Amino acid sequence: MKKRVVLALGGNALQKNGEKTAEAQKAVAADVGEIVADLAGKYEIIVAHGNGPQVGNILIHEETAATEGAPAMPLETAVAMSQGQIGYWLTQAINNAFLKRGKNAKVVTVVSQVVVDKNDAAFRNPTKPIGQFYSEKEAKKLAKEKGWVVKEDAGRGYRRVVASPKPIDIVEKKAILDLVSDGAIVVAAGGGGIPVYRTKILKRLKGIDAVIDKDFAAEKLAELVKADIFVSVTAVPNVYINYGLPEQKALENVSVNEITSLKKYGYFKAGSMLPKVEAAASFAKKGGVGIITDIDSLKMALAEKAGTIVKK
Amino acid sequence: MKKRVVLALGGNALQKNGEKTAEAQKAVAADVGEIVADLAGKYEIIVAHGNGPQVGNILIHEETAATEGAPAMPLETAVAMSQGQIGYWLTQAINNAFLKRGKNAKVVTVVSQVVVDKNDAAFRNPTKPIGQFYSEKEAKKLAKEKGWVVKEDAGRGYRRVVASPKPIDIVEKKAILDLVSDGAIVVAAGGGGIPVYRTKILKRLKGIDAVIDKDFAAEKLAELVKADIFVSVTAVPNVYINYGLPEQKALENVSVNEITSLKKYGYFKAGSMLPKVEAAASFAKKGGVGIITDIDSLKMALAEKAGTIVKK
Repeated sequence: MKKRVVLALGGNALQKNGEKTAEAQKAVAADVGEIVADLAGKYEIIVAHGNGPQVGNILIHEETAATEGAPAMPLETAVAMSQGQIGYWLTQAINNAFLKRGKNAKVVTVVSQVVVDKNDAAFRNPTKPIGQFYSEKEAKKLAKEKGWVVKEDAGRGYRRVVASPKPIDIVEKKAILDLVSDGAIVVAAGGGGIPVYRTKILKRLKGIDAVIDKDFAAEKLAELVKADIFVSVTAVPNVYINYGLPEQKALENVSVNEITSLKKYGYFKAGSMLPKVEAAASFAKKGGVGIITDIDSLKMALAEKAGTIVKK
Repeated sequence: MKKRVVLALGGNALQKNGEKTAEAQKAVAADVGEIVADLAGKYEIIVAHGNGPQVGNILIHEETAATEGAPAMPLETAVAMSQGQIGYWLTQAINNAFLKRGKNAKVVTVVSQVVVDKNDAAFRNPTKPIGQFYSEKEAKKLAKEKGWVVKEDAGRGYRRVVASPKPIDIVEKKAILDLVSDGAIVVAAGGGGIPVYRTKILKRLKGIDAVIDKDFAAEKLAELVKADIFVSVTAVPNVYINYGLPEQKALENVSVNEITSLKKYGYFKAGSMLPKVEAAASFAKKGGVGIITDIDSLKMALAEKAGTIVKK
């Protein structure tokens, strides 16, 4: 029986050398397709991905060019747009990698809503800058008009900041599970998912402007679809302590307890390795295998011969 | 056993009174959700939808605000973005309509690639205007730079025109069929699908800038998923001959031969009823039931008590 794997790819990873055209990003997606096609003989694969630079561009376009006749879409809808965009590129690339091998694959992108708690503490202190830069005056006007929280960003101007709440459920989990069980390769929870919350009375879904960490969302997905392995695919083959210093040390096989202790000592940086470490540890705590590695080491890491492998 | 139905909704239908904000379109999607939830007890439902005004807005934003740091996405990728956008709104609305009824539904939007023939005659004579208006000078510059075909549009300026080729296959058909068979309500082939063609040698998929008619794409989908009924949901309860004239007559039950004859006599207008009539007749010719009606008559029309019903 094939092991079920959730891969969490960074949204930055699709923009090699910072190239942001559709053509350039499709070329990188083609490399991802090759790797997925290689692994699919041995593993059931679900691909989750980030969308930082992509949704950033969508928001810049939406906001800069908004008119009454063509109003800007809100962040939550922009995330949905980025799922269509990146999901299309990945789906096509994976299909093509199979065709190159003389095979047909069933590959599908599921537009995914990820449920957050409206009372998540993150909403009281939004920290995640999104979209374009504004002057102080413009920013304050927008804050008043649209209820945005805006903050000065390192001397470069003002930006909107939004909350980054924790994912608690994925609306499309059953459909994703059905698809994987039917032999499909699924792209899901793109950009950490479209952020939605459930209303008090009827538990109805309602979009909310926020940014969900893609590693946390992918880990939640791995849990919900009963995956065996969760991999956070990043730019380096391992997690390191004292990264870049003479005493740098790559972590290989670590227990949840060990990596949690290292975390407590402040070894992992927020906005960098910290969410990946937390996601991998969280998945391992529930009995799965949590891996952090780069795309070149992925195959070896899945065989537990490379990467940082976190187990209970 | 439930009958399987493909509904083709107009993209304009989501913009009641021309209101284009996300909130306004979500409110219309909520009405669609109610209807789908009402029908789901008796029918398996796949929702296809148009994207004309939505992808138009995306393109206007992408092109107006494009910079080197945030380049514009091409049309085929913009279609994928509109599938994420509209699919999210519909999926959420359908989920909420079920929740209102105290039920849970499995609802899923599948990002859909629709295959066209690169040698389709439509590519030799592009006719479909898309995106913003340009001055003659700008338009000719863009035509040269990007290989666009541009045309003067009724004295209002120049616009890009693209081909509207016929759909010949849907890449995600098996996944969509699996989902429907597993009890899901599926949103698919949005905006007529992301237009792709297959390369000569390896049959690999490649995006191409074009606009596929949403009724033709939805009819192809109905065929591929072995639907019993295909419905083109439009603004009027029936197809009429001599519409708006004293001798106006609603078509009720018609055979493929009858409606094909009426078509030959020029009763149906291109860009209006013609593609709907052609799609319904094409589906009926293969043995299914093709219906053209409005959203208010939908339930009665599915029981063959309203609307224009086309059968072999």
